[in-house]
Amino acid sequence: MDFLDIIKNAKKASLKLANLSSETKNLALEAVADSIEKNRQKIMEANAQDLVNGQKLVDTGELSQAVFNRLKLDENKMNAMIAGVKDLIKLDDPINKCLLARQLDKGMNLYKMSCPIGVLGIIFEARPDVITQVSALAIKSSNAVILKGGKEAINTNRVIFETIEEALNNLNEYPKYSINQVFSHEDVAKMLDMSDYIDLIIPRGGNSLVKFIKENTKIPVLGHADGICHIFIDETANLKMATEIVIDSKTQYPSACNAVETLLIHKNFKYSNELIESLKNAGIKMIDAPESWAFEYSDKILAYKSVENLDEAIEHINKYGSGHTDAIISSDIENAGEFLDNVDSAGVYHNVSTRFSDGYRYGFGAEVGISTNKTHARGPVGLDGLTIYKYKLYGRGQIVKDYADGKKHFTHKEL
Amino acid sequence: MDFLDIIKNAKKASLKLANLSSETKNLALEAVADSIEKNRQKIMEANAQDLVNGQKLVDTGELSQAVFNRLKLDENKMNAMIAGVKDLIKLDDPINKCLLARQLDKGMNLYKMSCPIGVLGIIFEARPDVITQVSALAIKSSNAVILKGGKEAINTNRVIFETIEEALNNLNEYPKYSINQVFSHEDVAKMLDMSDYIDLIIPRGGNSLVKFIKENTKIPVLGHADGICHIFIDETANLKMATEIVIDSKTQYPSACNAVETLLIHKNFKYSNELIESLKNAGIKMIDAPESWAFEYSDKILAYKSVENLDEAIEHINKYGSGHTDAIISSDIENAGEFLDNVDSAGVYHNVSTRFSDGYRYGFGAEVGISTNKTHARGPVGLDGLTIYKYKLYGRGQIVKDYADGKKHFTHKEL
Repeated sequence: MDFLDIIKNAKKASLKLANLSSETKNLALEAVADSIEKNRQKIMEANAQDLVNGQKLVDTGELSQAVFNRLKLDENKMNAMIAGVKDLIKLDDPINKCLLARQLDKGMNLYKMSCPIGVLGIIFEARPDVITQVSALAIKSSNAVILKGGKEAINTNRVIFETIEEALNNLNEYPKYSINQVFSHEDVAKMLDMSDYIDLIIPRGGNSLVKFIKENTKIPVLGHADGICHIFIDETANLKMATEIVIDSKTQYPSACNAVETLLIHKNFKYSNELIESLKNAGIKMIDAPESWAFEYSDKILAYKSVENLDEAIEHINKYGSGHTDAIISSDIENAGEFLDNVDSAGVYHNVSTRFSDGYRYGFGAEVGISTNKTHARGPVGLDGLTIYKYKLYGRGQIVKDYADGKKHFTHKEL
Repeated sequence: MDFLDIIKNAKKASLKLANLSSETKNLALEAVADSIEKNRQKIMEANAQDLVNGQKLVDTGELSQAVFNRLKLDENKMNAMIAGVKDLIKLDDPINKCLLARQLDKGMNLYKMSCPIGVLGIIFEARPDVITQVSALAIKSSNAVILKGGKEAINTNRVIFETIEEALNNLNEYPKYSINQVFSHEDVAKMLDMSDYIDLIIPRGGNSLVKFIKENTKIPVLGHADGICHIFIDETANLKMATEIVIDSKTQYPSACNAVETLLIHKNFKYSNELIESLKNAGIKMIDAPESWAFEYSDKILAYKSVENLDEAIEHINKYGSGHTDAIISSDIENAGEFLDNVDSAGVYHNVSTRFSDGYRYGFGAEVGISTNKTHARGPVGLDGLTIYKYKLYGRGQIVKDYADGKKHFTHKEL
């Protein structure tokens, strides 16, 4: 099937998906989980082949070790993948929720109802488990998807996709062409150009992939390019707490987007030397005066700087940060409030690790990604981020002229 | 001041605006309303000058009569402008509302708080009252704005802007450079390119302006290019109701975006001839088989077509419509439900005029515009559409490692 047919079919499927019952969607999720369980061996074999090919590319320098590492599926990852699909079954259906019910006048009622966005374009690198995760989120939220994975995982992606497709095709009630995969590099450019058919692009991968996508499409993009997170150590910070939080924020998973990259220390904080010593002992390389304050190390490297006061810290963060997650460590409630009010980021924290910025930790059950956008969805995005709403208005022949002429009046009563 | 300074100042102001009290914002609105009242004469004089210049352009064909008509301010429009600002004072503050409060664990609470988007770019044509309306909405929602009006209203725009600026400058608590105006045509291109500084573009004007903007920026655009609304007359429609609703939807304000453009009539509807006769008698030009089904007449012209059944009607609307507002006239509840569920538009109506699609009529108090987007805000957009949210997390030294190691467990209790 050629690209335009795929995308037109996806659009048609999306209209049918909007009205699927929660039961059908949960049946589909169960079928997908079962099918992956049944095809475990086949998926692992395809992955082994990608790993052999990938290793050659690592040897010749065409593939980075980091990407190669994310390529590998093991039994744990397979189990997590299957559990992730099953977890969604238990979550509330995000579609057809009544967000507002209002009587506009006697016999004329307005309902704001949540509905799916339509067609999602997912462009991802390496990690083949993204297919399962995103397909499952799309099923639960009644969206159609076009998936484009990286060529380094092409065998694994294909087998997982076929596994999911087979499971869904066996369910008569489930619309065909809801989950689609494209393969070629040219298809990425085509996807980014399809604003009439694709309603939202979700990139899953490194900064350069996300930046490329953001710069090359007019379709809304949900996600973040950079995760330049800060911790500000206020004058009154508790040394032990500060040390534990910075170590956790930097070392618990250094390449995560919510890992800290810059430490700002109040010039009057008395234990500055002790803090830095402890961080070094924890294996963190401390950089004074880095080349750029807007750099994501994704490694056990931390830039640091002494600041005059809270205002300078806030200004630094709003200037160099990426609006992801920033924390203050302080015993002063006033300063903490000031920091949380004035730092313009998706997550603003007092006395906790930046690593808490995550859909599972926030209790959203499932995570689409973390957004640094200022519209639609910000911060960790759960299933709600894959929905929008429509207004349903039921009347008995009302016309606007009667209200414009003053013959009738709106009641605007909540129902 | 040059463009980059203006935009940088606006960004700085936006950070301060985020934390203004509701009282200060309402004082600002009152000051703006008073200042416009005081400068009524001066504004009308500037408008008279634009009208003289505009008339010349109409005579030479450089300005359309439609745009010229929207240019004119009269006492009624001035009153409405002032009343519109005062109305906002009574509305709830959309900022700093708690949208979710959740205990993640003992001593660690998460709050999702509404906050302003940041800097809004407003690009508008003709109607100088847009400045007042948008500035007032920005004040209430704590956003900074960059305004760019059409050159046909340059004198009126300048005087209204100075009136607002003066009122705000007299209020010490109100951040300077919150409301900004730019004038040159090149500034539009610059605005559309400033995705680092401008968070949302709101165009107010004709289709071609909106289309141009959507095609030339990566900043999210809130609005709609086309308003191609449909009414489907089902087999069981009541003739009188159908006639009244179609006349209202087409003639009450033919150039409105929520006016109907296409009438689809079920082939078994018995009173098709009577209906069309009545519409013609109401001064509507009926067009059978138009050149395009995706055309917005903005006039007393209505395309129409006989359809086989409900499914064909739904398919036609999803294919040719603009996702704005579409209605079914039917006595069959099942068919109405089917239509409302399957038409993918911001507003889906049963037995009411499409003209109800409007923020005031929905009871939103103020309207930013009507959006056909599938993300952020859809349909008539109130003050909420100018907000986003941030997550505030308060803890006592919690680190992620303890939860990853299973030493601690999330409680995820709603507060």
